[in-house]
Amino acid sequence: MIRLKSYLSGAWVDGQGEDEILVDASTEETVATTCTDGLDRDAALQHAREHGGPALRAMTFAERGAMLKAISKAIHDNREALIEASVQGGTTRGDAKFDIDGASGTLAYYAGLGKRLGDRTFLVEGEGEQLTRSARFFGYHVKTPREGVAVHINAFNFPAWGLAEKAAVAWLAGVPVFSKPATPTALLAFRIAETIVDTGVLPVGAFQFLCGAHGDVLDHLGPQDMLAFTGSGRTGAILRRLAPISDRHVRVNVEADSLNAVVIGEDVEVGSEVWQMAVRDIAREVTQKTGQKCTATRRVFVPRGALEALTEALSEEIGRVKIGHPMHDGVRMGPVASAAQQRSVKEGIARFVEAGATLAYQNDAAPIGVEPGKGFFVRPTLLVAEPGNVAVVHQEEIFGPVTTLLPYDSTADAVRFVAMGEGGLIASIYTDDKKALKELVLGLAPWSGRLLCGTKKVADQAIAPGMVLPSCVHGGPGRAGGGEELGGERGLSFYLQRTAVQGDRALLMRVLGLKA
Amino acid sequence: MIRLKSYLSGAWVDGQGEDEILVDASTEETVATTCTDGLDRDAALQHAREHGGPALRAMTFAERGAMLKAISKAIHDNREALIEASVQGGTTRGDAKFDIDGASGTLAYYAGLGKRLGDRTFLVEGEGEQLTRSARFFGYHVKTPREGVAVHINAFNFPAWGLAEKAAVAWLAGVPVFSKPATPTALLAFRIAETIVDTGVLPVGAFQFLCGAHGDVLDHLGPQDMLAFTGSGRTGAILRRLAPISDRHVRVNVEADSLNAVVIGEDVEVGSEVWQMAVRDIAREVTQKTGQKCTATRRVFVPRGALEALTEALSEEIGRVKIGHPMHDGVRMGPVASAAQQRSVKEGIARFVEAGATLAYQNDAAPIGVEPGKGFFVRPTLLVAEPGNVAVVHQEEIFGPVTTLLPYDSTADAVRFVAMGEGGLIASIYTDDKKALKELVLGLAPWSGRLLCGTKKVADQAIAPGMVLPSCVHGGPGRAGGGEELGGERGLSFYLQRTAVQGDRALLMRVLGLKA
Repeated sequence: MIRLKSYLSGAWVDGQGEDEILVDASTEETVATTCTDGLDRDAALQHAREHGGPALRAMTFAERGAMLKAISKAIHDNREALIEASVQGGTTRGDAKFDIDGASGTLAYYAGLGKRLGDRTFLVEGEGEQLTRSARFFGYHVKTPREGVAVHINAFNFPAWGLAEKAAVAWLAGVPVFSKPATPTALLAFRIAETIVDTGVLPVGAFQFLCGAHGDVLDHLGPQDMLAFTGSGRTGAILRRLAPISDRHVRVNVEADSLNAVVIGEDVEVGSEVWQMAVRDIAREVTQKTGQKCTATRRVFVPRGALEALTEALSEEIGRVKIGHPMHDGVRMGPVASAAQQRSVKEGIARFVEAGATLAYQNDAAPIGVEPGKGFFVRPTLLVAEPGNVAVVHQEEIFGPVTTLLPYDSTADAVRFVAMGEGGLIASIYTDDKKALKELVLGLAPWSGRLLCGTKKVADQAIAPGMVLPSCVHGGPGRAGGGEELGGERGLSFYLQRTAVQGDRALLMRVLGLKA
Repeated sequence: MIRLKSYLSGAWVDGQGEDEILVDASTEETVATTCTDGLDRDAALQHAREHGGPALRAMTFAERGAMLKAISKAIHDNREALIEASVQGGTTRGDAKFDIDGASGTLAYYAGLGKRLGDRTFLVEGEGEQLTRSARFFGYHVKTPREGVAVHINAFNFPAWGLAEKAAVAWLAGVPVFSKPATPTALLAFRIAETIVDTGVLPVGAFQFLCGAHGDVLDHLGPQDMLAFTGSGRTGAILRRLAPISDRHVRVNVEADSLNAVVIGEDVEVGSEVWQMAVRDIAREVTQKTGQKCTATRRVFVPRGALEALTEALSEEIGRVKIGHPMHDGVRMGPVASAAQQRSVKEGIARFVEAGATLAYQNDAAPIGVEPGKGFFVRPTLLVAEPGNVAVVHQEEIFGPVTTLLPYDSTADAVRFVAMGEGGLIASIYTDDKKALKELVLGLAPWSGRLLCGTKKVADQAIAPGMVLPSCVHGGPGRAGGGEELGGERGLSFYLQRTAVQGDRALLMRVLGLKA
């Protein structure tokens, strides 16, 4: 059992009060404790603004990129120990790698972007343009680092990737980070934070880590600060409403779980390559991270005639996934993260059934290598429902290895039903019918942050729908929180202030360091 | 006296209940009445989503641009009658033109952008990029019109421009508009709305106009809807906090009044060209629209040694502005918009003086051509204060013809003092010292939506600081609301959903209509 600490104002510190307890989700044994009571969050934020911000802003993008590269390398070099920390908390090795490699990979991607952006400390957008009849009077749009601190509130499901992807973008923009992991899986986040601090490449104040309850941190945010939150849409809305946030117009980004959809096209033949791709993807999205991904597939729209075949194919595929203690050979799915999550999944399934969904499949094999009754295990579950009748499938998410199959009768209906989810992070479309593809892409785009198009020619080359790439935006409208992260250079905008600068063209080019 | 109506669900309608009364701000005589009680706002929003949205989305940018061009032309053709409506409310002809020409000009600018964007119905951003090792698997970012309605809540100070600039951008993006003017100056907004409807160029449901209290309209917004608000930051914060807005992650843009700054460089010699430019600009920003502009100059930072000369020069310049009934010859400044505004300006001046500011100049000539004691007239006023001692100058705005002169001792101090305003729409910098210019531009950019650099070579070519151009972003961080409007194509983003689309490159190019 280890004691987790926070890293604030340049030192590892411990709180004084009642401890929070972190358990191994497979055995329910205590693996770590932490406490943040009494830690001075206000001073830590001020430390970031006074020291971290100015130091990062003085660095060029290339220098910030080199810093990210060193951190990426340190995480990669420390990979085995980090996997170990994740497995200790009850995560499978496969899921741990997905999380940790996502962290180092995203840092490496933004390191590369920093190198490309080169020897500048801020961005100038586009070419500028003449504003009046005078050819001399010009306007440029500059994007300079905001002078506040980026507070990152992360979700429990990706303790490594979540911390790193947010931090990478903020640091590259030139903004200091104050990161708060979710307590149930904070052990791995703590190990990542240690790894980051130990690199010694970050300027003083560029990184802080609050390992536990956020306390009054949000009360101290100001007009140049930023809050990026990943978690439930409900909590995101509560954060937005907080008077210190809304009164001072703190910039807020919310990335929330959503009712991500899959649409299998009417043309897709049972057993075809595209069919198999869809089945494989859905099974992976349902069971990976025990279904605890904001990008996991929650609603599968299938042509009515193929519902039975899909139920069978998915039951078989999901039935093959071995469930149990992650240390055990061949186990591919571990428990959910906490007792609260376990309860919530079970209650969710019951609520769906009560509302009219049917239980189509449940893998009820006993978890391998665990003491009976121990661990926060849940059963991978397929439900079936009529999308026009069972409203709850479009309104509530079961955050675990559970998905609902929903028969549909026309492409237009499929578009309409997906939209009933009120906004998602990702929708996947499987079809080789160009007309249907176009109808689905343009119909689903306003409701989605990302669309994955699974077609025959990419059946063996596409990423899984749940894979979040740093080059593509991550976020979605409405229920998905209305936010946006990553997307290459796009992601930097959240941490930069865009300002129109108007004046004498030649002079501004010199001031802004532009080449003639 | 006329009766104003609302245009909802395709018809001019009137409310039933107690009337709101609009008065001539110069004479306090009633000029119009309106009522929106009992009007079905929910049905109107649904009308926009069901009819206006699909119709606009089916049009190309070029077609939407042609529509804007026709509306711009109609407003221009109707200019005299519109000026008349504005003057009836108590506005000077000069101020009325500024507002109305701003409306037709912004519409014309976006008409031109529509023509350039051409024969497409949505945007594809950049070139796309390869996502995996396979050259076939590609990612594009598309920007499609959101399927909701844009609710525009406008401020009383620009009834024409405010309505038109917001609507132009939404329409070009492909989104229907539900516009609500501020009641005290709704007469001109109503005439603009009439002009728009009478063109007949808008598809059914693309435009609605609620002429009075907004009532329950915000309770009915959903995940694809957008709310753009111009007004006080305090009200903006309240809107953000509303449960229907925050719970459903409605997209919100707030453009709020702020404590816009001017910095006169230490190098600027009294009487020089740049000095005169600064004096002329400040005097204009203090008196135009009777100081009721979100972009008006509220804080003037001047080198300590030049404070006396500036006070003198500005007193003289402002003293020349004739105040009175707008119908009267030579009158350049009219009353403020309402009794409430008048009271608020007077109280603001008293509060500043109580906090330690000194009254340096007040034009106390009696208003020309008005009955003594009538009209919402206020006195153009210059205050002087120590920026380090009188905190209120960085915290409160007097929304009228009032500005405070603040002596400073170094460029670094000037940067620090401007930042104490916690975010502004516009800061103006007057200097020919390149080093100081760079320090000011880079120091003020994170705190500003726009910077105007007044230098010798553009002294007779620059726009006034308060002039909002459609090609440059308008908005600002923190106190200024944290939002962004206009900025050419940038402004469309608020009304579009950005979506990453991943799949087979060749296929996506066809689906998205891209050329090889």
